[in-house]
Amino acid sequence: MPDLRLDPLTKRWIDIAPERGKRPRSSGDNRINFCPFCPGNEDKTPPEIFAIRPYGVSNDSNWKVRVVPNMFPVLQIEGDLDRKAEGPYRKMRGVGAHEIIIESPDHFQHIHQVPFEQAKLILNAAKERMIDLRGDKRLLCLLLFKNYGGEAGISLEHPHLQLYAYPITPFEVALELQSCQDYFRTNISCLLCDLAEHESQVSSRMVLEGLHHIAICPYASRFPYEVMIMPKPAGHKAFFTEIEDLQMTDLVQVLQLTLKKMERALDFWPHNLVLHTAPFFEHSPVPNKGETVNLDFHWHIHILPRITKIAGSELGAQFFIHPIYPELAAKNLRETTV
Amino acid sequence: MPDLRLDPLTKRWIDIAPERGKRPRSSGDNRINFCPFCPGNEDKTPPEIFAIRPYGVSNDSNWKVRVVPNMFPVLQIEGDLDRKAEGPYRKMRGVGAHEIIIESPDHFQHIHQVPFEQAKLILNAAKERMIDLRGDKRLLCLLLFKNYGGEAGISLEHPHLQLYAYPITPFEVALELQSCQDYFRTNISCLLCDLAEHESQVSSRMVLEGLHHIAICPYASRFPYEVMIMPKPAGHKAFFTEIEDLQMTDLVQVLQLTLKKMERALDFWPHNLVLHTAPFFEHSPVPNKGETVNLDFHWHIHILPRITKIAGSELGAQFFIHPIYPELAAKNLRETTV
Repeated sequence: MPDLRLDPLTKRWIDIAPERGKRPRSSGDNRINFCPFCPGNEDKTPPEIFAIRPYGVSNDSNWKVRVVPNMFPVLQIEGDLDRKAEGPYRKMRGVGAHEIIIESPDHFQHIHQVPFEQAKLILNAAKERMIDLRGDKRLLCLLLFKNYGGEAGISLEHPHLQLYAYPITPFEVALELQSCQDYFRTNISCLLCDLAEHESQVSSRMVLEGLHHIAICPYASRFPYEVMIMPKPAGHKAFFTEIEDLQMTDLVQVLQLTLKKMERALDFWPHNLVLHTAPFFEHSPVPNKGETVNLDFHWHIHILPRITKIAGSELGAQFFIHPIYPELAAKNLRETTV
Repeated sequence: MPDLRLDPLTKRWIDIAPERGKRPRSSGDNRINFCPFCPGNEDKTPPEIFAIRPYGVSNDSNWKVRVVPNMFPVLQIEGDLDRKAEGPYRKMRGVGAHEIIIESPDHFQHIHQVPFEQAKLILNAAKERMIDLRGDKRLLCLLLFKNYGGEAGISLEHPHLQLYAYPITPFEVALELQSCQDYFRTNISCLLCDLAEHESQVSSRMVLEGLHHIAICPYASRFPYEVMIMPKPAGHKAFFTEIEDLQMTDLVQVLQLTLKKMERALDFWPHNLVLHTAPFFEHSPVPNKGETVNLDFHWHIHILPRITKIAGSELGAQFFIHPIYPELAAKNLRETTV
């Protein structure tokens, strides 16, 4: 069972998962010569939690998207949290979920390379799993992400997303939520809505604009060619789980086109794609209304190219350095045709 | 001139330095076939800022430790900060310092491999430079660090430390300072002193104990075999620049022995070594005393092995995952003889 521990110096929760040292990889040590995510190898993964298949039965090969528990989980679904102090420290058991969303039966085509319909099935499967996990009263927050390329930390190469459900709010989400809540208290408005509005007006960091979503290179990008995708203010939603079908269609189009532009513009683009959605607990009420409307967070996607190294300043000071102005990156991506 | 920009969503300052894209490396693109840090190549670096040499003149080859400005600086010493708003964002010019402390004339021997006397010269040179930079009223905070190995982000292989002087407090230091100040307000005591005291008592995470410093594997380590070195409570100091000679002798011994143990225990140990010292501004006064004693921060060193990958969860959520209990890592390091 993994353990969660809180660092009193930074308030970051970390995860110690001894079993993770044994997991297989597509290359290097612990290399495996078959793909456990390809059709026909369904018995090489734990039984599926969810799948989209036009016909057939659970765990057969006729799936289009398949969700399985990670065999070497960072967070495990069984048991109680057993929160406790240990001297001046805090710990709890690593209760939660760690699921793998296998994007398609194709071993080589990633979410931006499969047909639109398949990409929409992938994000709908993610949404369904997120709705289900939200029902678990022990859990607080979800993270959907994808590692693309060795520098970004992939272990198995068959295209897949990962979904974590945490019993805590992970630090980066807590940080963003704090800023959004501070902003809401002063402005009675969503920080991310206001930033989206500003970016649409100035347009210099705009990569592309769909009906319901925008893709921008953030003003203070941590990495060259970093991109953020978020709903426009009219579609403000704290929770990704509340996205509607028409918005999902637009998101898939914006996401696929953005990733295709990045792939075309960059020779080398290992990246982490991370979806931030609000923690489950209730948010700031609208003053004088007495109802909670979750105006203080706004789900969004970060795409973080791993082109530059994370060295002492980035890791030891969270002071990220890179050579590309976001305005230049956005211009290049806008002008890249795919 | 590099630019600093503040991310309104996280309050992190980042640095955009277009010239950095052109810097040379010991391997890969922009490879150079000579070492600008080896004796005889003094004219291949900008003129030295500081050096320890038993005889001779500035910029000759008779140095033992040599400090030069980085030729592709992240922060530049000239000019005004020119702080301003840009729509909803904040920016300033990247004024500060980015210095290279060349550890010795030897191209291959790192700080733990050189004789004790040389290692002490290196840290004394760092201290001297830090004292000098503290006098610059435009600057707020220092970071001394070392990248060791390709995974940790080295570009030139000749052993060197780097010293940044920032006009802001970098995020990770601000975070630690906030925790320390919150703790001080409640406990009228230094968080790091109290943690050091606890670690000495329980001893399960102790790597080694010198006269004035301890080396521990932190309770909530972000990486396997992560180590933290800090002064014992009796030697509480907010600022590394105030370390005295006897303490420096002990620190060099503890640091060299810790690194030698890590090198022996780990086959592969790229790492970042980062020294955190208090920002220059004044700290919490002791209640009812009306004087500032800087009891709310405590300089320390993080040694962060880069054995595990930084992937979506680490980068996108600051949720670090690894398989090694700090108590096991500390036991292995304690039992490793060098």
